[in-house]
Amino acid sequence: MQITHIEHIGIAVKNLDEAIKFYENVLGLKCYAIEEVEDQKVKTAFFLAGQTKIELLESTEPDGPITKFIKKKGEGIHHIAFAVKDGLQKALNQTEEKGIQLIDNQPRQGAEKMNIAFLHPKSTNGVLIELCEKEE
Amino acid sequence: MQITHIEHIGIAVKNLDEAIKFYENVLGLKCYAIEEVEDQKVKTAFFLAGQTKIELLESTEPDGPITKFIKKKGEGIHHIAFAVKDGLQKALNQTEEKGIQLIDNQPRQGAEKMNIAFLHPKSTNGVLIELCEKEE
Repeated sequence: MQITHIEHIGIAVKNLDEAIKFYENVLGLKCYAIEEVEDQKVKTAFFLAGQTKIELLESTEPDGPITKFIKKKGEGIHHIAFAVKDGLQKALNQTEEKGIQLIDNQPRQGAEKMNIAFLHPKSTNGVLIELCEKEE
Repeated sequence: MQITHIEHIGIAVKNLDEAIKFYENVLGLKCYAIEEVEDQKVKTAFFLAGQTKIELLESTEPDGPITKFIKKKGEGIHHIAFAVKDGLQKALNQTEEKGIQLIDNQPRQGAEKMNIAFLHPKSTNGVLIELCEKEE
């Protein structure tokens, strides 16, 4: 697999509006998009810091993955997304061949029209890792 | 404060050698440096992914902050470090003036000869945020 950069860092928050204030007013970053991703039961807010985005995630459902994460670990950093080139499906296949457990066997659509897939944190020292690639 | 990019993402691991294998053999990143930071009671391993580094952190002491973190939350993403320009001390002062609790009131030396300071996660939606700047 060829990783080009860290596409974004996902952060689980209880209240998107409150969290946006911190990133804008204290860190001086600018929220450039807010998007709901129904498939993942989240509302997201995006900021750009150099090459990498900060993606704040607020749950839209009481049974959503972000609600569960916050109940278990509290608010905080949820996942890292690495941008891959030369094919996300190929990267997933290679990863599985190396004995890594996948959450997604094939890409699905995430925020910002990216194709995304998650690796299982059991296989990655507790880090929820997303691999992603811009739609062709 | 002016953030230029995400300098690194710190990841708490139990066993540095095992974790390095995952980042090298599965993700295809290259460990370019291993460094012990006595002040923080950690041994670190660095990888570059585009503009941002992955910093793996293994505790060197049973009472170190990484040991405590892993006991409480398990292995996983520990902190995000934002690179600032125009002065780290100035950025800290501005942050405190905005009511954010600091861990470090003034910069101290981190890995890779960076000046670093942490904000308290109580003030930042549970995210341990490091601000850093290259030594002049």
